[in-house]
Amino acid sequence: MDTQPRDLLAFDPLDPVALTQALVRCPSVTPAEGGALGLIAELLAAEGFTVERPVFSAAGTPDVENLYARIGREGPVFVIAGHTDVVPVGDAGAWTRAPFGGTISDGMLHGRGACDMKGGLAAMIAAALRFRRENPDAPGSIAFLITGDEEGPAVNGTVKLLEWAHARGERFDHCLLGEPTNPATMSDMIKIGRRGSLTGRLTVHGKQGHVGYPHLAENPIRGMVRLLAALEATALDKGTAHFDPSNLEVTTLDVGNPATNVVPAQARAVFNIRFNDVWTPETLAAEIERRLREAAGNSVRYEIVFEPTNAVAFLTEPGPFVAMVADAVEAETGRRPALSTTGGTSDARFIKSYCPVVEYGVVGQTMHQVDERVAVADLLTLEAITHRLLTSYFAAAGAD
Amino acid sequence: MDTQPRDLLAFDPLDPVALTQALVRCPSVTPAEGGALGLIAELLAAEGFTVERPVFSAAGTPDVENLYARIGREGPVFVIAGHTDVVPVGDAGAWTRAPFGGTISDGMLHGRGACDMKGGLAAMIAAALRFRRENPDAPGSIAFLITGDEEGPAVNGTVKLLEWAHARGERFDHCLLGEPTNPATMSDMIKIGRRGSLTGRLTVHGKQGHVGYPHLAENPIRGMVRLLAALEATALDKGTAHFDPSNLEVTTLDVGNPATNVVPAQARAVFNIRFNDVWTPETLAAEIERRLREAAGNSVRYEIVFEPTNAVAFLTEPGPFVAMVADAVEAETGRRPALSTTGGTSDARFIKSYCPVVEYGVVGQTMHQVDERVAVADLLTLEAITHRLLTSYFAAAGAD
Ligand SMILES: [Zn+2]
Ligand SMILES: [Zn+2]
Repeated sequence: MDTQPRDLLAFDPLDPVALTQALVRCPSVTPAEGGALGLIAELLAAEGFTVERPVFSAAGTPDVENLYARIGREGPVFVIAGHTDVVPVGDAGAWTRAPFGGTISDGMLHGRGACDMKGGLAAMIAAALRFRRENPDAPGSIAFLITGDEEGPAVNGTVKLLEWAHARGERFDHCLLGEPTNPATMSDMIKIGRRGSLTGRLTVHGKQGHVGYPHLAENPIRGMVRLLAALEATALDKGTAHFDPSNLEVTTLDVGNPATNVVPAQARAVFNIRFNDVWTPETLAAEIERRLREAAGNSVRYEIVFEPTNAVAFLTEPGPFVAMVADAVEAETGRRPALSTTGGTSDARFIKSYCPVVEYGVVGQTMHQVDERVAVADLLTLEAITHRLLTSYFAAAGAD
Repeated sequence: MDTQPRDLLAFDPLDPVALTQALVRCPSVTPAEGGALGLIAELLAAEGFTVERPVFSAAGTPDVENLYARIGREGPVFVIAGHTDVVPVGDAGAWTRAPFGGTISDGMLHGRGACDMKGGLAAMIAAALRFRRENPDAPGSIAFLITGDEEGPAVNGTVKLLEWAHARGERFDHCLLGEPTNPATMSDMIKIGRRGSLTGRLTVHGKQGHVGYPHLAENPIRGMVRLLAALEATALDKGTAHFDPSNLEVTTLDVGNPATNVVPAQARAVFNIRFNDVWTPETLAAEIERRLREAAGNSVRYEIVFEPTNAVAFLTEPGPFVAMVADAVEAETGRRPALSTTGGTSDARFIKSYCPVVEYGVVGQTMHQVDERVAVADLLTLEAITHRLLTSYFAAAGAD
């Protein structure tokens, strides 16, 4: 663990803009640490946090560095979660600013990870440090749960960090995950849940033959069209109070037969379902299997294999904690954000097994794109929102 | 043209078995002539036929040798048509006899082309020579129309040979095409027509996107499944007195999207229709376009391109000529053959524009396969059937 004194840092760690720049300048493309976790470890330790840097390994995946930090010994424990790893630069020549430069121009801070999610993490760290300096004797604890493996396989990251912390006796009460949840402005959206994801691979078997003798062949494409039509014929559900309807997309369909006079032997399809909390991966797979069985009857020979998934659907039921986050956003932006469960999966799916988790961060418009950037004003707003949230949270805790 | 005297031939050209062996020993894989046409030219010339060997060319295809021979100056002209080219050997190591050996074993003559269709051609040549020797003053003419481009692109073969002959003033009255029409025994099947073939290439356009945001994407696979289901929902027709129903087979379906979290931009399918004489390629394409338009409505963006085709459906209406062929088969085999229009396309689709054409040959079970072979007994039967047919045909002509 790095124990360098804080005065060696070349910037004020309470400045979310300077801290975002410093993090963006760390080239931490998954699984590279790139100096980002080291920087955070240094400044949290300097403020009095206990910092741990567990490295997790698994066969077939690169080792990944993680960070766990905590200040305070009592509950409640408010966890701020996030990741310092970023997706690759992509077409480097297409960037108008250096991808790891952290350049500020026209009020925008540029660089890979600026919005996903070094900006969000920096604003929350800055807010937590300011809150602790202002309230050194605040009740409860603040913890940071930061991984370098969110954009990669997500095997040696949050999921293991949570297990590791739990095994050490760490218990969490509420978590704020700083992913960029806002489509356009800072008052848009808090995410209080995520849909699950289930991928199935469907193979239909036929019998190869000449198109001129169809009774001697059995076209697997005919069966495939019938099965896919059955999967798409009826909605999986109507959605729930907080979730859109579950949705199935066939992502590919491949036969690869170059001969126009030959009936092929096999057809393969892959589909992905983003599902709400009406389903578990198990009940959903059973429903898909039932639909396939019914459509196939005795005439279509097929196999369905579901990929193992840890992306279950979850919902943090709106209640006092969600309201407290929304209140903080509304107080700083003047508008109450929507409570949403849309979009892809996030590490919140792992955290929800340990404590209620809400996601909120900067505007995600440019995430994963060329010229990824974040508004400097939004970093300041997020710092203020987080500071306000911590203040209300621990005020309520103190009142208990 | 080869003018070697006939006595240089090492076998009796009236023996269909020896002639089949001699032809099988010519390695005439399309477009190679392999000595096969030279051999036929030699023995026909020696029997008094006028023989021509036109070579046809087209950009992008190999030059191909062909043969046209005729004996007699008057009508009616009875044409025997066929091809000497063969498909490639394939897995040479899997053959139990030399592919170009012409080995006879257990009553079977082995080799590539044995049944498709050197055996049929040899039996018909032998029969024609025997008939002419026995009836040197028979009325009418016998002509041979033999190509080396039936198994290949079929561009420089029968279609051009017919145009060439027609331009020289040659007129044909009836044609026997010696393709292997029998599924199992020599009394099974005469082909009096063939279905046409039409290939379409269907592309459905969507909008690429993330599966987590389906409202921002547009899955072309959904549209493709709908269009293909519509194409397959209703039979094209019920068949006719002599034809099976027209049949559509989707032969491939390709997206090639490796990412299970991405909705692809495009899906492509190819289908082939074997159609009966209810349709022309034009009316059929119009019907397919109508079905696609109706299924697509305003919501599926697609393109359909039909490949140019010269495979139209045709029927030689049963009548005196067809009956004469069936009579000859029944007389030699004891069973009346079925009149069929099944199977793939053949050069008969070109010939039918010049004169009524019937297809009959040996048993085709092993055509295009490893260990292709023909029964020696079937060669003798086909020689006898052809001889009987020529006898009745020219007897009827003489009686006119
Ligand atoms: Zn992220
Ligand atoms: Zn053939």
